Amino acid sequence: MPKMFEFKIHHKDKNSLARTGTFKTPHGIIHTPVFMPVGTKGTVKTVSQDDLKKIDAEIILANTYHLYLRPGEKVIKKLGGLHKWMSWNRPILTDSGGFQVFSLAQEKGLTKNTKFKTAIKIDENGVEFKSHLDGSHHYFTPEKAMQIQHDLGADIIMAFDECAPAQSSKKYFKEAMIRTHNWLIRCKKEHEKFSKKSQKKQALFGIIQGGTYKDLREESAKFVNKLDFPGIAIGGLSVGEGKHTMLKMIEKVTPHMDKNKPLYLMGVGTPEDLLECIDRGIDMFDCVHPTRMSRHGAFFTEHGRFSIKNTRFKTDKFPLQKNCKCETCKSYCRSYLRHLISENEILGLRLITIHNLHFLLNLMRTIQKEIKENNFTKFKRNFLRKFKSKNEKI
Amino acid sequence: MPKMFEFKIHHKDKNSLARTGTFKTPHGIIHTPVFMPVGTKGTVKTVSQDDLKKIDAEIILANTYHLYLRPGEKVIKKLGGLHKWMSWNRPILTDSGGFQVFSLAQEKGLTKNTKFKTAIKIDENGVEFKSHLDGSHHYFTPEKAMQIQHDLGADIIMAFDECAPAQSSKKYFKEAMIRTHNWLIRCKKEHEKFSKKSQKKQALFGIIQGGTYKDLREESAKFVNKLDFPGIAIGGLSVGEGKHTMLKMIEKVTPHMDKNKPLYLMGVGTPEDLLECIDRGIDMFDCVHPTRMSRHGAFFTEHGRFSIKNTRFKTDKFPLQKNCKCETCKSYCRSYLRHLISENEILGLRLITIHNLHFLLNLMRTIQKEIKENNFTKFKRNFLRKFKSKNEKI
Repeated sequence: MPKMFEFKIHHKDKNSLARTGTFKTPHGIIHTPVFMPVGTKGTVKTVSQDDLKKIDAEIILANTYHLYLRPGEKVIKKLGGLHKWMSWNRPILTDSGGFQVFSLAQEKGLTKNTKFKTAIKIDENGVEFKSHLDGSHHYFTPEKAMQIQHDLGADIIMAFDECAPAQSSKKYFKEAMIRTHNWLIRCKKEHEKFSKKSQKKQALFGIIQGGTYKDLREESAKFVNKLDFPGIAIGGLSVGEGKHTMLKMIEKVTPHMDKNKPLYLMGVGTPEDLLECIDRGIDMFDCVHPTRMSRHGAFFTEHGRFSIKNTRFKTDKFPLQKNCKCETCKSYCRSYLRHLISENEILGLRLITIHNLHFLLNLMRTIQKEIKENNFTKFKRNFLRKFKSKNEKI
Repeated sequence: MPKMFEFKIHHKDKNSLARTGTFKTPHGIIHTPVFMPVGTKGTVKTVSQDDLKKIDAEIILANTYHLYLRPGEKVIKKLGGLHKWMSWNRPILTDSGGFQVFSLAQEKGLTKNTKFKTAIKIDENGVEFKSHLDGSHHYFTPEKAMQIQHDLGADIIMAFDECAPAQSSKKYFKEAMIRTHNWLIRCKKEHEKFSKKSQKKQALFGIIQGGTYKDLREESAKFVNKLDFPGIAIGGLSVGEGKHTMLKMIEKVTPHMDKNKPLYLMGVGTPEDLLECIDRGIDMFDCVHPTRMSRHGAFFTEHGRFSIKNTRFKTDKFPLQKNCKCETCKSYCRSYLRHLISENEILGLRLITIHNLHFLLNLMRTIQKEIKENNFTKFKRNFLRKFKSKNEKI
């Protein structure tokens, strides 16, 4: 028996940092590179747990911030934890709530040289914030984030970090990074206070910050790597800094990483980004993009994204993508799906979400196969050429 | 091989007019008494065709008026007809559009002694109406209703009738009834113009009108019965006339019916009404009630209706109903379902709809069994006593 939370690398690509691996958790093994659908409030929007199993989602995400506010982590704990409560017996990852706490503040406006002036108050101990639901005051600390995630009981839990906005000053990015590092140590200590049994059930991942500055990213990477978490995440990217900068930051981080740990890039999830980031050594991803675009009627094909609302699909008898094996494409034509979306029928949202999640998860399985066959670089080039060929502007 | 659209009666209850039967259609056999879930726009709201098969829905309804307006019956015809377009290979019944055309007018106000003054214009030839979507003008005649339903291609199609509001005067009810009778003859003629092949594929049902007047209902019943349709519907009930009046009208109609034809009561579908009307000889039902109540978070149990929004379900670990075999109850607890509905998560609407439709269809299967065992009256009494015992006011 391999030990719990063991990450095994199975294949390394010869021409890039891409690799395949398995990460063992109490609720099953995750095959990497992996894309994790986001179930913010304990539900991946529009689909059921059974739908997710049919497209073979190996792990899903849930959000600490939202579940803490409603129904409250104590309710979920009382009902036997997140897995039992939501009837999902495969792995779950919960974020720490940090991103939500800070992204709310971003919406209120932050300039390059000022601190947040808004709904949140940051001190070295933690963050005071207002609920987006009712304006009530709450206080998150690293210890609080650990307690909530302990109550929720996900397989992978995340350290509480400060995610500074892309337009912050270097001075502020550094302050936020140092604070995040201090919080990481406190998260680790708090997590270690849990019983041995709990520790075996939950893996705590550390998070690298440092904004858009190479030296800060390197410093953060080294710091986090030393703390010897079972997995490491890169936070604070894909928040408006631009694609080029995002990839540069990843390239600065990876050389300092223990190669035997899974590397998780938070909040990334377009097919293009997945390929580029896997190329640079990322093993895990999550993003609301595929589920959100579905609810706007956009769908993936091997030729790019299209909008089902387009008039040309009105009498289209074909599935969203020819030869697609998803439940949607097996049964429904574009004409019917267009009708459902035009009429705001709920079934349409679900059917397109199923297709798009299947498309992404299937892409990840194909990537795993191509890495094993030392063909990743060629596959990536061909896929992107085709994918960008007919892409609608959506 | 029995002939197409053959209705066979299998068991008759000894103490009531309840009976079991089978109705053969080109897309399969329907076991009666049957409840038909309503899929107004070619989708039973929130659930997929696969969900409907899992709860063993034998037939569903779709609305001529809505599908005519969008996407248009010609689009559906081009895609191979309603069954193929919506990927449902079991029986479908389409209404004639009459009810929607008139119910729109009702909302605009009608007094006891006036005709409709509003968005619709009725003459002996047909009805001019405005689309509820964009105010565009349309004209439905019996012939037009037949043409649309022929293009849609449902197994059972309905005659075009005038459904006068419950508060109409007797004079107006009589005029509307006579018009409906004339239209029935025209519908029958038009349907017979279709090729022999089409006639074998679609059964036209006649509709009894006559409002809340016993003599008119009797007159209409005799008239419609003589036209020898393969099935007969009772229209214009459950539109605000009150439960007592509704049952009285049914009792006036049934003695004049050919007992070898299926009798369909349009727009009825609470558990209480289903039992009372089966008792009085009704074989087929449809209603938006179970799907609509689901989207408001109401659910059936053997002890009546409850609202999942009620605080007492916040930490309730039990399924909606103990021992229920539906997909929802097999996997999800009330606490999770309450959370989904409270958070406006789409999955919640679907899961509760699945449960409520399963509850009703399962009730129908149980009723069939009880009729076969000559136990219907006792079953009805016991069911209603229990069902009314803890019913919340919803």
